[in-house]
Amino acid sequence: MNLLNHIDSPEELRKLQQEQLPQLCAEIREYMIENLSHNPGHFGSSMGAVEIIVALHYVFNTPRDRVVWDVGHQAYAHKLLTGRRDLFPNQRTAGGISGFPFPAESEYDTFVCGHAGNSISAALGMAIADLNTPGEEDRKTIALVGDASISNGLAFEGLNNASNNPNNLLIILNDNDMSIDSPVGAMHRYLSDMTTSASYNRLRYKVYNLFKKLGLVNDKRKGLLLRFNNAIKSLVSTQQNIFEGLNIRYFGPFDGNDVNKVVKVLSDIKDMKGPRILHLRTVKGKGYKAAEDNPQAWHAPGNFDPETGEKIVSSSSTPLWQEVFGDTLVKLAEKNDKIVGITAAMLSGTSMNKMMRSFPKRTFDVGISEGHAVTFAGGLAAAGKKPFVAIYSSFLQRGFDNIIHDVAIQKLPVVLCIDRAGLVGEDGVTHHGLFDIAYLRMIPGMRVASPMDIESLKRLMITAEALSEPMAIRYPRGKAKGDDTVSVSSGLEIGKGRKIFGSNNAKIAILTIGPIGYDAMSAAETLHSEGINTDVFDMIWVKPVDEALLKLIAENYSAIITVEDGVKEGGFGTTVTDWLNANGYHLPVVKLGAPDTWIYHAKVDQLHADCGYDSDGIIRTVKSVVKSLPADKNVKPSNK
Amino acid sequence: MNLLNHIDSPEELRKLQQEQLPQLCAEIREYMIENLSHNPGHFGSSMGAVEIIVALHYVFNTPRDRVVWDVGHQAYAHKLLTGRRDLFPNQRTAGGISGFPFPAESEYDTFVCGHAGNSISAALGMAIADLNTPGEEDRKTIALVGDASISNGLAFEGLNNASNNPNNLLIILNDNDMSIDSPVGAMHRYLSDMTTSASYNRLRYKVYNLFKKLGLVNDKRKGLLLRFNNAIKSLVSTQQNIFEGLNIRYFGPFDGNDVNKVVKVLSDIKDMKGPRILHLRTVKGKGYKAAEDNPQAWHAPGNFDPETGEKIVSSSSTPLWQEVFGDTLVKLAEKNDKIVGITAAMLSGTSMNKMMRSFPKRTFDVGISEGHAVTFAGGLAAAGKKPFVAIYSSFLQRGFDNIIHDVAIQKLPVVLCIDRAGLVGEDGVTHHGLFDIAYLRMIPGMRVASPMDIESLKRLMITAEALSEPMAIRYPRGKAKGDDTVSVSSGLEIGKGRKIFGSNNAKIAILTIGPIGYDAMSAAETLHSEGINTDVFDMIWVKPVDEALLKLIAENYSAIITVEDGVKEGGFGTTVTDWLNANGYHLPVVKLGAPDTWIYHAKVDQLHADCGYDSDGIIRTVKSVVKSLPADKNVKPSNK
Repeated sequence: MNLLNHIDSPEELRKLQQEQLPQLCAEIREYMIENLSHNPGHFGSSMGAVEIIVALHYVFNTPRDRVVWDVGHQAYAHKLLTGRRDLFPNQRTAGGISGFPFPAESEYDTFVCGHAGNSISAALGMAIADLNTPGEEDRKTIALVGDASISNGLAFEGLNNASNNPNNLLIILNDNDMSIDSPVGAMHRYLSDMTTSASYNRLRYKVYNLFKKLGLVNDKRKGLLLRFNNAIKSLVSTQQNIFEGLNIRYFGPFDGNDVNKVVKVLSDIKDMKGPRILHLRTVKGKGYKAAEDNPQAWHAPGNFDPETGEKIVSSSSTPLWQEVFGDTLVKLAEKNDKIVGITAAMLSGTSMNKMMRSFPKRTFDVGISEGHAVTFAGGLAAAGKKPFVAIYSSFLQRGFDNIIHDVAIQKLPVVLCIDRAGLVGEDGVTHHGLFDIAYLRMIPGMRVASPMDIESLKRLMITAEALSEPMAIRYPRGKAKGDDTVSVSSGLEIGKGRKIFGSNNAKIAILTIGPIGYDAMSAAETLHSEGINTDVFDMIWVKPVDEALLKLIAENYSAIITVEDGVKEGGFGTTVTDWLNANGYHLPVVKLGAPDTWIYHAKVDQLHADCGYDSDGIIRTVKSVVKSLPADKNVKPSNK
Repeated sequence: MNLLNHIDSPEELRKLQQEQLPQLCAEIREYMIENLSHNPGHFGSSMGAVEIIVALHYVFNTPRDRVVWDVGHQAYAHKLLTGRRDLFPNQRTAGGISGFPFPAESEYDTFVCGHAGNSISAALGMAIADLNTPGEEDRKTIALVGDASISNGLAFEGLNNASNNPNNLLIILNDNDMSIDSPVGAMHRYLSDMTTSASYNRLRYKVYNLFKKLGLVNDKRKGLLLRFNNAIKSLVSTQQNIFEGLNIRYFGPFDGNDVNKVVKVLSDIKDMKGPRILHLRTVKGKGYKAAEDNPQAWHAPGNFDPETGEKIVSSSSTPLWQEVFGDTLVKLAEKNDKIVGITAAMLSGTSMNKMMRSFPKRTFDVGISEGHAVTFAGGLAAAGKKPFVAIYSSFLQRGFDNIIHDVAIQKLPVVLCIDRAGLVGEDGVTHHGLFDIAYLRMIPGMRVASPMDIESLKRLMITAEALSEPMAIRYPRGKAKGDDTVSVSSGLEIGKGRKIFGSNNAKIAILTIGPIGYDAMSAAETLHSEGINTDVFDMIWVKPVDEALLKLIAENYSAIITVEDGVKEGGFGTTVTDWLNANGYHLPVVKLGAPDTWIYHAKVDQLHADCGYDSDGIIRTVKSVVKSLPADKNVKPSNK
């Protein structure tokens, strides 16, 4: 670590000789492998982007020149070079640095980058702002697009607007043939088919002269030279150049893992005017054989042995929530040939790959296109299919209007299977799935449920299968709870909750939604042992909420505590208070859930504790409610 | 109307001789002009699309073959030909047919199409579903993309996935050079620059032979012919062919207002396999000179004299809400050169054109790209600008994730100016702006306000200008309320409401947000004259809500009625009950607002009445609350 150890800012990096850069890249990789083997993170993308990052900080005057990241999990080398080397071992842990670039963390982090495809739009804003600010005109902005997010609609909207106002934006396409899962769609094939500029350059001058003789090109006529270049380019590639079609000058593809090459190209084009796109090809996992060989598995591999590349997996046989979903979907699809599966670049992350293996023709991975995924599902449903759409909660925010406009208004029987709902832990503020209950429950006709255990998830999927209208099922990241061996054959009744813990003469009702119900049960047991009696209800459904059960609770308890792994503003607890209010009940309700602030990264358990809705938090809340109630708690309450 | 009068279904259309079609098109236009002159609607787009629609129903076997509309306001001719001719005079009125295709209305309407860009994704779902359903494989699906929605990110995601699974989708691009306002961006220039296929065909064979001689093409090598065609195409156009770059076969451009030409082309390509795109150029307003000359003004012209083309405008001098916004923005921008304006193809609809006229370099119309508009604003704000983003409420749903991820998490000082908030009337279910309060108030750090009158809107914009964090201001469609002549120099205090009507000893408090406060005042006056006293509070802020005022109200009144022009589930009323609950107050609250069902089209006043939150509805509610209260209403309530 002779070089890396002495670089505390890009300024020091820029003092190196160019021939030292390959050595620096090697040291960065070594440091990352060592660290990520025991503090897991996004491995593959960050390994592939080392040379691009070194070259960017070497050629550009960061932080005055701005690099805007896209899918920030490629950015570890950037963290190491911008004064955060010593903090890196604690990345993604409580109080440590974030796993993604984050503006509040460093002046070198220019924009939030947890959701793919936003860099071009954001960088375009910066580039245009600078060009229109006296004294800032020479400032440079670079959007670094990675991991297939170029196929995202937002990225396209950015591209489509990039040539619309004067600007000098440089877009770098870090093309590693991979998003979280293999990228799909025409844009991917297009990039794969593009040939090197070498053959283009070889042909260029030869053919130009021939064309001149034939009278097909003429230097005097404006625009013809560009057309000519495009013509030659399309001749040497099997595809058209989409970017130049969008009036953005295109350079590449070049080897993005050759640091000297990248430095040279960046130096050549950095001062050019107008929007440009530079296409660099990189290898995901570059420099670590196991990861190069199996990039999908090494996207975020967890703990591993740095010497052997062997992954360290815990021996627990409890399935993940996503696996319960994936296995159940396959079972349902075996009997119902209308069922189709859709995801958006999360095949393995949602376990939709199980459906893909069993029914490849009935499974669709649409790439990083959450909005399209939902509308496409609407189209499939309109033509008689039964689509199950599996997307992470925070990414499904991109499909909010599609859920309303392309599914719910038409009452189409699309099933939204919302993975990574609730706090997700280490991925932090951009990845928590806290808003889904609140943004779905406002939509007329939507059904919204969350299973507490494995059996409930399986049965909710059967309910959804039979339903001829839209339904959403949310479940969190991580190990599922409950008995996996139970086999189910019938669905759950819509809008019906259940009592999961009862004590004698309990006057406090704890209402929960989802697996957090286990924490409430454990709290109730502890409280019971201390002489405080509570009853716990797993409501299962946010919409329609179980009105009969709410009525019973409102009339027989002195206070209610609601618990949810989601925002308190407008979520499940609000559903309860809205119902109580509308029906004229007036009893104290304490809502536990995510507070109205941004929540950053730490382990899930710790975040639950911080937010006060783990078992201890529930116990504390119950005790405080008990204290606040009138002395004679055994009197039948009059809540109306 | 010799032909049109006898066509009650496309089957009858298909019995016509092809040479009768131009006459039919003329009759359709005549019928539309006559009707739309006194029952206003979307004129320009529908006039331009007549020939395409006639040809589609003539060539394809609708409704078995499915036409999926995009921006449904091009579809009037479709309504006239599918059994709704006699219902057309009542389109967009209460109980009448919708202004857009709507599946619940007709088997010929295949999908909802109020928000642009969704047709390719939805139609792709149908096309793939049919190909995988025994007996349905020969069914045809056509996506008819119009009015510049091809530049939308969702449309691109659809295109990007169109060649990803086997399907025979036909995409028709109705290219009329216009969205609601002039389209922007590279895709538009690209389409404008595309030359006719005639010159392409002329060159094709000539150059092919020359290339062969030069050894540059070789029939035996697979793929080369396609490359060759692309090369020639790009030679005759100034741009590359983006669509073939995406692996979708491209045909065109052809004259989309030549019905025989369109019939011929459709017949030629209808049975081809694989995804195809047909590019048709049409003239917005075609067949009505005033509209052809000024398509922007004739997008939705209101009432007009069919003979002279003179528009019938009411003489009221009251400005529209959007005009108050536009004028105020210009005034602020004159003094603050950091201010920039952004809209997404709604320059005239939001009055952002005022800013464009005064500060063209500081005003950005990004086309139908709501997500990009918000993220782009985030980028501008990150680089020191103060962006005001004006977008209609229902379209801003497309930017939900962008608001969270690209603005709010970073606390960037972007101002969302949400036009057409609340019920919009005739445009109906896809266009009502009912969700914004509910989906914005769940976002940490967001400020959400709504002005009741002109002065408040002006002052809220000053507040937003000074704020270094995100803020949203929502206001409805239509005439503004209050005094337009008042000049303002200071903002409103954040989170501070006001009393706008007081009576002696009132025990009922009416809390309102936005201009609906005028209805509450009027109700309070009527009630006062009948001896029922209420106090009315214009809360102005949903977030942060005025806690001091809520405390005062909770402690001094016996019941609360909340009134909002938005969804009751999770909106302003819920904000009030959430606060009361969290602070231990227990008094009856009746929430008035949009119910948890879909609301269709009718005049705004009627819809307000139907939903029970016009002045009469408020009066009824107050009387019912008064009746339910305990006898001695003058006793100081004990609500805690």
